[in-house]
Amino acid sequence: MDQMEKVSVARTRRYNDFPRTPGQEDEQGLGEKRLWFFEEGDGERKDLLGGKGAGLAEMTQAGLPVPPGFTLTTEVCLAFYQAGRRLPDGLPAEIRAAMRELESRTDKGFGSSSNPLLVSVRSGAHVSMPGMMDTVLNLGLNDDTVIGLAKLTGNDRFAYDAYRRFMAMFGTIVLDIPKDEFDRVVDEAKQKAGVASDPELGADRWKEVIAQYREIVRVHTGEPFPQDVYEQLELAIGAVFDSWHSKRAADYRKFNKISDDWGTACSVCTMVFGNLGEDSGTGVAFTRDPNTGAKTLFGEYLRNAQGEDVVAGIRTPMKISDLQSSQPDVYAQFVAIAHSLETHYRDMQDLEFTVERGKLWMLQTRSGKRSAEAAVKIALDMVHEGLITTAEALRHVDAASLDQLFHARIDPHETYAVAGKGLNASPGAASGEIVFDADTAAERGNAGDAVILVRVETAPDDVHGMIAAKGVLTSRGGATSHAAVVARGMGKPCVAGFDAMTVDYRAKTATIGDAVLKEGDWVTIDGTTGNVVIGKLALIPPPSELPDWLSEFLGWADKAMRLEVWANADTPEDARKARELGATGIGLCRTEHMFMQQDRLPVVQQMIISDTPHARAEALARLLPFQKDDFAGILEVMAGYPVTIRLLDPPLHEFLPSLEDLLVETTELRMSTGEKDPLYQEKMRVLGRVRALHEENPMLGLRVCRLGILYPEIYAMQVRAIFEAACDLRERGVDVQPDVMIPGVGTIEEMRVTYDAAKAIADEVILTRGVEVPYRIGTMVELPRACVIAGELATIAQFFSFGTNDLTQTAYGYSRDDAEASFIPQYLEQKILKDDPFQVLDRVGVGELMRMGVERGRATRPSLKIGICGEHGGEPSSVAFCDELGLDYVSCSPYRVPIARLAAAQSALGS
Amino acid sequence: MDQMEKVSVARTRRYNDFPRTPGQEDEQGLGEKRLWFFEEGDGERKDLLGGKGAGLAEMTQAGLPVPPGFTLTTEVCLAFYQAGRRLPDGLPAEIRAAMRELESRTDKGFGSSSNPLLVSVRSGAHVSMPGMMDTVLNLGLNDDTVIGLAKLTGNDRFAYDAYRRFMAMFGTIVLDIPKDEFDRVVDEAKQKAGVASDPELGADRWKEVIAQYREIVRVHTGEPFPQDVYEQLELAIGAVFDSWHSKRAADYRKFNKISDDWGTACSVCTMVFGNLGEDSGTGVAFTRDPNTGAKTLFGEYLRNAQGEDVVAGIRTPMKISDLQSSQPDVYAQFVAIAHSLETHYRDMQDLEFTVERGKLWMLQTRSGKRSAEAAVKIALDMVHEGLITTAEALRHVDAASLDQLFHARIDPHETYAVAGKGLNASPGAASGEIVFDADTAAERGNAGDAVILVRVETAPDDVHGMIAAKGVLTSRGGATSHAAVVARGMGKPCVAGFDAMTVDYRAKTATIGDAVLKEGDWVTIDGTTGNVVIGKLALIPPPSELPDWLSEFLGWADKAMRLEVWANADTPEDARKARELGATGIGLCRTEHMFMQQDRLPVVQQMIISDTPHARAEALARLLPFQKDDFAGILEVMAGYPVTIRLLDPPLHEFLPSLEDLLVETTELRMSTGEKDPLYQEKMRVLGRVRALHEENPMLGLRVCRLGILYPEIYAMQVRAIFEAACDLRERGVDVQPDVMIPGVGTIEEMRVTYDAAKAIADEVILTRGVEVPYRIGTMVELPRACVIAGELATIAQFFSFGTNDLTQTAYGYSRDDAEASFIPQYLEQKILKDDPFQVLDRVGVGELMRMGVERGRATRPSLKIGICGEHGGEPSSVAFCDELGLDYVSCSPYRVPIARLAAAQSALGS
Repeated sequence: MDQMEKVSVARTRRYNDFPRTPGQEDEQGLGEKRLWFFEEGDGERKDLLGGKGAGLAEMTQAGLPVPPGFTLTTEVCLAFYQAGRRLPDGLPAEIRAAMRELESRTDKGFGSSSNPLLVSVRSGAHVSMPGMMDTVLNLGLNDDTVIGLAKLTGNDRFAYDAYRRFMAMFGTIVLDIPKDEFDRVVDEAKQKAGVASDPELGADRWKEVIAQYREIVRVHTGEPFPQDVYEQLELAIGAVFDSWHSKRAADYRKFNKISDDWGTACSVCTMVFGNLGEDSGTGVAFTRDPNTGAKTLFGEYLRNAQGEDVVAGIRTPMKISDLQSSQPDVYAQFVAIAHSLETHYRDMQDLEFTVERGKLWMLQTRSGKRSAEAAVKIALDMVHEGLITTAEALRHVDAASLDQLFHARIDPHETYAVAGKGLNASPGAASGEIVFDADTAAERGNAGDAVILVRVETAPDDVHGMIAAKGVLTSRGGATSHAAVVARGMGKPCVAGFDAMTVDYRAKTATIGDAVLKEGDWVTIDGTTGNVVIGKLALIPPPSELPDWLSEFLGWADKAMRLEVWANADTPEDARKARELGATGIGLCRTEHMFMQQDRLPVVQQMIISDTPHARAEALARLLPFQKDDFAGILEVMAGYPVTIRLLDPPLHEFLPSLEDLLVETTELRMSTGEKDPLYQEKMRVLGRVRALHEENPMLGLRVCRLGILYPEIYAMQVRAIFEAACDLRERGVDVQPDVMIPGVGTIEEMRVTYDAAKAIADEVILTRGVEVPYRIGTMVELPRACVIAGELATIAQFFSFGTNDLTQTAYGYSRDDAEASFIPQYLEQKILKDDPFQVLDRVGVGELMRMGVERGRATRPSLKIGICGEHGGEPSSVAFCDELGLDYVSCSPYRVPIARLAAAQSALGS
Repeated sequence: MDQMEKVSVARTRRYNDFPRTPGQEDEQGLGEKRLWFFEEGDGERKDLLGGKGAGLAEMTQAGLPVPPGFTLTTEVCLAFYQAGRRLPDGLPAEIRAAMRELESRTDKGFGSSSNPLLVSVRSGAHVSMPGMMDTVLNLGLNDDTVIGLAKLTGNDRFAYDAYRRFMAMFGTIVLDIPKDEFDRVVDEAKQKAGVASDPELGADRWKEVIAQYREIVRVHTGEPFPQDVYEQLELAIGAVFDSWHSKRAADYRKFNKISDDWGTACSVCTMVFGNLGEDSGTGVAFTRDPNTGAKTLFGEYLRNAQGEDVVAGIRTPMKISDLQSSQPDVYAQFVAIAHSLETHYRDMQDLEFTVERGKLWMLQTRSGKRSAEAAVKIALDMVHEGLITTAEALRHVDAASLDQLFHARIDPHETYAVAGKGLNASPGAASGEIVFDADTAAERGNAGDAVILVRVETAPDDVHGMIAAKGVLTSRGGATSHAAVVARGMGKPCVAGFDAMTVDYRAKTATIGDAVLKEGDWVTIDGTTGNVVIGKLALIPPPSELPDWLSEFLGWADKAMRLEVWANADTPEDARKARELGATGIGLCRTEHMFMQQDRLPVVQQMIISDTPHARAEALARLLPFQKDDFAGILEVMAGYPVTIRLLDPPLHEFLPSLEDLLVETTELRMSTGEKDPLYQEKMRVLGRVRALHEENPMLGLRVCRLGILYPEIYAMQVRAIFEAACDLRERGVDVQPDVMIPGVGTIEEMRVTYDAAKAIADEVILTRGVEVPYRIGTMVELPRACVIAGELATIAQFFSFGTNDLTQTAYGYSRDDAEASFIPQYLEQKILKDDPFQVLDRVGVGELMRMGVERGRATRPSLKIGICGEHGGEPSSVAFCDELGLDYVSCSPYRVPIARLAAAQSALGS
């Protein structure tokens, strides 16, 4: 192990964040079998053998041609780390015994100079992490065995090529020497030989390369390149285990929400060679088309090559049909194997294989990655083929991936440079000419031009411009900024908080790095990733309707799920979309967005700035018909389904001009036209009111039901509008079911006062109109205190809807806008948070408060309807948690309804 | 009951907020005896008989001279409300029977025209609410009985005077007729008669007055003045019960935190007359001096008068010694009774009595209200006299009242007009000349002038002015505004958010209503009440040291209490004060206040504005010696006691100039000197950084441990300063016990990262210095999520300190600054909140989160030290709750330490 120790030290900089615990070097508690020959393996135990090892085992047991080999389990990997990055005691001896077994099966010798056995050493985690961890091929070559290989294959060039490949790979992966040092030697050799490609170099040239490689290794490690093949093997196994904690792999896991605690398995497999001539080759294939889902073998094949040639892009592979034409028998055998593997695994497979002098060897099988569309279509086809059940089909599709289907995206054929990355505030891509004010956006957008509205931040009086624009780009603001919330509500792409951009309204320019964009210049924004691209790109639009294949598939989900899936919708258009996408109720209709529309905002502002209750009442009377129309539209679209309408929620100053802008404007007016200027005086009056309403922490200020208690006339107007609309529709025979939701209740008295006030008006309107309107009054549970007193609240409230956005804010003490712009990214980076709690519901903290709310609420009122209307309602793992908690429904934005339906089904199926 | 109903309707406007429940008119569940004669009463049952009724019962049973009578219980009052403000069924008959009993005992007839029985009808709640509820005297007089009374007393003038008094009182209280209508008639009569005072009017004049009163009653009620004495009695009893829900009484209860649910009892007592000549009179007395506690009978006596003459201020009463000189026997009898009552009740008594033609009648005894100083001294004396135990003494003193002892107050002899009321942000009174900027405040204050610093808001660079000023007055900002927090920390009077005042810095004026104050004008502020007075007032300064009598008293508290009482202190001066006042530890040392001192702030600002880590490190290195000195000072003062030092907590922008000011300043510069001006450019640079640090909701932003994780060098500097200071002191043999507190931890990883980082530095310093320093690292539990994961946190944290200010903010979703300035006052008014949860710990919500935290924390680590360092730590009922929860200590501001000691003792004693 001396050599190992030295190497470890040399590599320390990559792993210095991994705690070394010298006291625990002895292997402990590793009761299970550590080394499994492929034919012994349990194909079900991917957790132990990794995906690759389990696949090789499964194929071997099925009698498929797999080169002999064995797998070291993921538990060995964990023991390796526990032992301070050393192979656990006794394991080297086990490995030697296994190698002797391989020698006897292949009739070759490991380290033999006459008939050398070569192996590959491959990583393989529980779930696929393609390209993220290390693999070493051709291990077992040294200055002696290379001669044996040359003799055995009768191909000097092949043997020395293999050796130099192994040395470079080993040097890079195991000895941590920069790859370009090895590459440079090959480049120089080609230059010297006057050739352009590697295959043109002969054996002698490779021998020269090998000599130089030896020197590189000596300089870097202070040792010769290891000639002992067992030393090579142990070091390579250690490197594979090490690669589990490489930054690349850790980042991949973080992004894909894979636990860091699993470890990787390591498979040692006899080498077969695809580069022994034209009757050899290497290939990869999917059993169906991973882009479209079509049932055709989809893959690539490269004659006379090893796999790494394909990966390195040195040679361009042919379609798999090349194998069909060149070696029809081998192809037929492969097709049969592919079919049998798909049938065996009941899923589309991603296969790797090698043909060595006309003999087919299977090297890997695993579930193939696929687009969302392909995933659904393959699942559908397999059900129709009788291969899988609908339950399996539902489990096969990643619920979150369905999101891809509902937004425009940048055409994958486009090549482009990303100018920077902002916050992915509202998904989808948009290309357009930039404009800097809402009026221009409205004018040009309504005239049919594609425009992107670029602002520092947006405000309520920008909404008409946002409606007309293809997308919105702001330089400030987070995921709950005005731009983000309104754009999401509209289903419009938005990149927010793009702080690499400086906007100058006066000059009408946006500066991104060195680029100064003027009004009319094109940009493309991708609200799914946050990317901003200067210039126009081709986009692929989303389907205008739910395609039949998806309807059929989600129909199965509806049958499987226990939860209902409702939608958050503020307009009749949203509600219609929600119905189309399968929502069976509206869980959150935000009335404030209605207040922000261009024709109403001046009235709303008048109401807020009013000095007298009379003036306020007058403004509210003008708003009533607007609200009534809004509600009527939504209620009618949702006939037969409940519509949960939340009374006014945000602080009033959100409807007013910004304090900062007013300070600058009034100072400018004072300095230019003076204090007598009537405009100055008017602005000062507005400033006074804005300042009076200004709050240090508006999230925690005069908003939610507090607003409705201090200004009862606002809620009264809203409730009247709801029930007048409902009565109108009932009179026309429309089955409307309005539910009134009181936001932000934290005390029983708030519940009582707002409930009584709303009920009085509802009953009065219903009585006056003389029609029946079934309705409920409930509350949004979004404060920790509400969860604690849920039992009391349920004595009054007829339903609960968890507002997990605010509940997350208050449980953690995070302001989402501020947190996502400042410390959450770093918290994720430093693993202080596993996930952004605003995206994935925090089960431990927020979840426990919810559990308390559910248990206490239902203890008081067993029939209590309980849902969730925070953004988590459309995130699959959060949906599963809501199912566990026994909620009645989840409610999410319309485009996430399909995701929630599938996630609800998967949760019910226990996937 | 017809008349009653009519009257009820006439009075409805006063009670329209009281729910009428017609379905519950039948009396229900009133199992207990409803009517108690005084001799039957149980003097212990104040809850049932009210304080007055219980006192009368107790005195009657003790054989003292009490006019016969009976009491209707508080339960009758509740039944009265349940029955829709009607006397419960059957009660009128019971009352008639009781009156017949009184008739037989007094040998008089109720309604008799020959020998009329008159009664008083008095309210009396569980706890004293002096003057808050109604009393009707002389009831039983009508056009017939007045003649009988005149004959019986041989005094026409007395009889008609009594009748007109009764009519006015009944008219006002029972019939709800404005009092001034009755007063006007008397004024006119005096004018007509050409006399100045009531006693100068004769019987005939009073008869004329009575005739006019009859007319007033008829006009207002549409009915004649009731002549049926039982109708009078029932209406009066109803009015007494009604007065429980009068606005005046409700406000009093709200202010004094008395439950609205108790109701008042109603005592009906035979009238005795103090106005039957010079050998008659009426008096009130305390058994000891309620101001100083001195053991002397303290009271007033008025010959030939009824009690209301004293209350109405018509005649000025004499000292009680007047009775001694005029009727020495009666006086001696009274002194003996006073002494026996005090001995009986084991408390200082507040007595009312009447002398009727030389016979002493006792009308009331109750515990007397007293100043804090008197309360403590009386308790001490009574223990020394052997009258009560120390435990009783401790229970006798209202813990909250001790606050009075530690602040200057306006001399009670001063008369003045209050110009307005702001937020009582930091207690105590101050008088001074106003100045509008910190530099002038510092200059003049340090020169010995009394100045009040008047600002719109204060900022960190005003602190040197605040230190030199006598007090601080701001027109904006709440209880956690900079001015409030810093002033409280300094123990300096502050009235904040005084929005009736407009401050003009340029003109150097402060406008309050019509008054325009200039620099140098005097104002007096009372930070205990929030009052602002224009002009200079005499103040009574607080004692400079803990007086001996208080030390002795609190020494008993220390023996009785289970909790430890620690203090929040940021400076050595604070810590010294805390020790003097009995704190046995520092539970919260806020390091940010050290950052705000004038000599450090520029360095802090440099650190924050630094673009490079290097510049930041350099600034931190300059701060290190400052912090080390700070900590050394506090640790040395607290030798032998733990000092809990909280690492930096507030958002960084709190140390920077205000964004709003910068916006105005930069706009002014741009408009005047232009964008090339270097000052403009410098200001813009600062503006840029302030804007970058600006947050929508700073309470929930980049602060607490988040700051320490994103800028680890700040916490590293602080921890180094703590342990270098500790090692210096240890080397000098000082027993220092620093505890490091990490603020705002919400996840286990935050705890782990900050704990590890702090521990590494602490151990490194200790190891380097080679001394022993015992220390702990713990966390401030101030987020709901921290309570939920307390079990996990306790695997690392060695102590918990509940930060109930922030925990209340997050549990309720209230920003204290915003809430106390906007909706909390109205919530208290509307009874949506019983108490301001920032002043009185919310047991139901916040308390349950705390309980969860305690249980889970101790389940993991039974030895976990747990305290509270929010402002609740000095509020008596909150201290009691912390005791119930089993916390180890409460920590509060130094001047509240005596309150907390007493409250902790009272809680332990189960008072």
